[in-house]
Amino acid sequence: MEDQSPKPIRCKAAVSRAAGEPLVIEEIVVDPPKAYEIRIKIICTSLCHTDITFWQAKVAPVFPRIFGHEAYGVVESVGEHVEGFAAGDAVVPTLLGQCDHCTSCVSEHNNLCAAVPVTLAPGMRRDGTTRFRDAQGNPLHDFLAVSSFSEYTVVDVNQVVKVDPAVPPKLACLLSCGAGTGKTFGVTDFVNPSQLDKSSVCEAIVEMTGGGVDCSFECVGVPSVMTDAFRSTKPGNGKTIVLGLGNETDQLCVSALELLFGKCVMGSALGGIKPKTDIPILAAKCMSRELELDGLVTHEVGLGEINTAFDLLLQGKSLRCIIWMDK
Amino acid sequence: MEDQSPKPIRCKAAVSRAAGEPLVIEEIVVDPPKAYEIRIKIICTSLCHTDITFWQAKVAPVFPRIFGHEAYGVVESVGEHVEGFAAGDAVVPTLLGQCDHCTSCVSEHNNLCAAVPVTLAPGMRRDGTTRFRDAQGNPLHDFLAVSSFSEYTVVDVNQVVKVDPAVPPKLACLLSCGAGTGKTFGVTDFVNPSQLDKSSVCEAIVEMTGGGVDCSFECVGVPSVMTDAFRSTKPGNGKTIVLGLGNETDQLCVSALELLFGKCVMGSALGGIKPKTDIPILAAKCMSRELELDGLVTHEVGLGEINTAFDLLLQGKSLRCIIWMDK
Repeated sequence: MEDQSPKPIRCKAAVSRAAGEPLVIEEIVVDPPKAYEIRIKIICTSLCHTDITFWQAKVAPVFPRIFGHEAYGVVESVGEHVEGFAAGDAVVPTLLGQCDHCTSCVSEHNNLCAAVPVTLAPGMRRDGTTRFRDAQGNPLHDFLAVSSFSEYTVVDVNQVVKVDPAVPPKLACLLSCGAGTGKTFGVTDFVNPSQLDKSSVCEAIVEMTGGGVDCSFECVGVPSVMTDAFRSTKPGNGKTIVLGLGNETDQLCVSALELLFGKCVMGSALGGIKPKTDIPILAAKCMSRELELDGLVTHEVGLGEINTAFDLLLQGKSLRCIIWMDK
Repeated sequence: MEDQSPKPIRCKAAVSRAAGEPLVIEEIVVDPPKAYEIRIKIICTSLCHTDITFWQAKVAPVFPRIFGHEAYGVVESVGEHVEGFAAGDAVVPTLLGQCDHCTSCVSEHNNLCAAVPVTLAPGMRRDGTTRFRDAQGNPLHDFLAVSSFSEYTVVDVNQVVKVDPAVPPKLACLLSCGAGTGKTFGVTDFVNPSQLDKSSVCEAIVEMTGGGVDCSFECVGVPSVMTDAFRSTKPGNGKTIVLGLGNETDQLCVSALELLFGKCVMGSALGGIKPKTDIPILAAKCMSRELELDGLVTHEVGLGEINTAFDLLLQGKSLRCIIWMDK
């Protein structure tokens, strides 16, 4: 009788061999999913600035590595003990897991699953090992246990969300990170710090808004920008939300006295969404056009052109560049 | 016809002549209230650690100065344009004002009145001048525009709250600061950092609580304690509330990465209460015993013994020491 269990798959992936160096399209081997794991055939993936931050080795520098954490795909095979998923399911892998049982998942206000915690170091969440090898058999590290810059990847069942297959793939792939972290986008006013006379950017914002903004969002992960964002908020209830990921050792420093008078600073991982609960909601809003993500997609390339996607983002020319596996 | 307008009053006050030096009981002159001001005969006042911080000249060092900002008294006279207050009214002066008209007062979530903003520098809120002179006619600076370590003081109408005269004076005087900032008190576990083997206090707390506390409160105004409080909270939704006032230039510094994963740091001035709205509510709770403040009062002295109150607090022997004007 023939062995029906999943076998290793040979496929193409964009491998990052060294910090800041162009990715290399290589033939790699993706191992079968272990217990509680799902192997996914990636349809498309997009490039997020967080990929750039790690590729530049600002955080958790480990190479060779397969980046990518915003993606859409279909289930190719499932490991033991995986329930509720079958080959062919349309899915979105996410960097945050959701077990639905731990104290964090049970809480309405915590999206950091404590059962299979997110870490920035490589390794599958349950055993710390990798499912990727290069043509010579050497291990390739994963990224956030997602690694979607590959035709196939293996992800923990807690990190896989089923989505309505009617959602256009290039929008579905944005749901796991970009769409949750920022929901709408646009600008009404723009302050160019280099064109200010004497005042700092925060002084200019406080003046423009008659005392400071209610909320400021820091999206780039630069400590001095975090401090400026904080100083731009209103005393009494000004709120600063930090979304950007910078260097691993970066410190946010603010005046304790200014904080004391009612200001607030908070971080937000994926905008606070619980992946399995909220991604289907975002998908439905995407279908009803309540959530307009089309404008975020400025470029589309094939896997072979992935370095173009990096260049465009580094040059500030793209918002999201979709990378198609079959193009 | 006799001039009925308020005259200067000669009375006793505890004057702080130099940073960290014992206060001196002096005869001073308290000017009549100007427009929108109320002159109050202080019945009792209490010593808060914030008085100590300023007396030690850690923040806004200006001397000679009359400290005190938690008090209970009766209206002696009112200036022009003061409505809703008359001689004999039982009142609590507060460091925060409430005009009920500015954007902050209209907001449910902001207790920093923008019309007559709180400042740490001395001076009445509307004209920046003082109502106090010493026996030689030299000006004495006020403190937070309250200065309750005096038999009489003058306070802006926005900073005066009428309270039920049935509330015991020694509890009423706690309503303006201590009772609003912390509502209940007690301890279930105590960690002595000097008795920990190798772990830091935050590591010990994270271990005790299986991952970190939901909320931590920093009450002493020490930056390293703020950082420890932050590190003791749970990833995903841990909240650190800073209540303590330290040095003017102190910075709160925390890991940006730790913040990003869902932690929050916020400051709280008077626990977020709006004085005119919430102090009467606290007073009612005090009368119904829902709010138990008696246990906070550990010592009582007369104005002449005010330096004893300072010693007791500095030695960690008192929680609140009431200073009676007529004792």
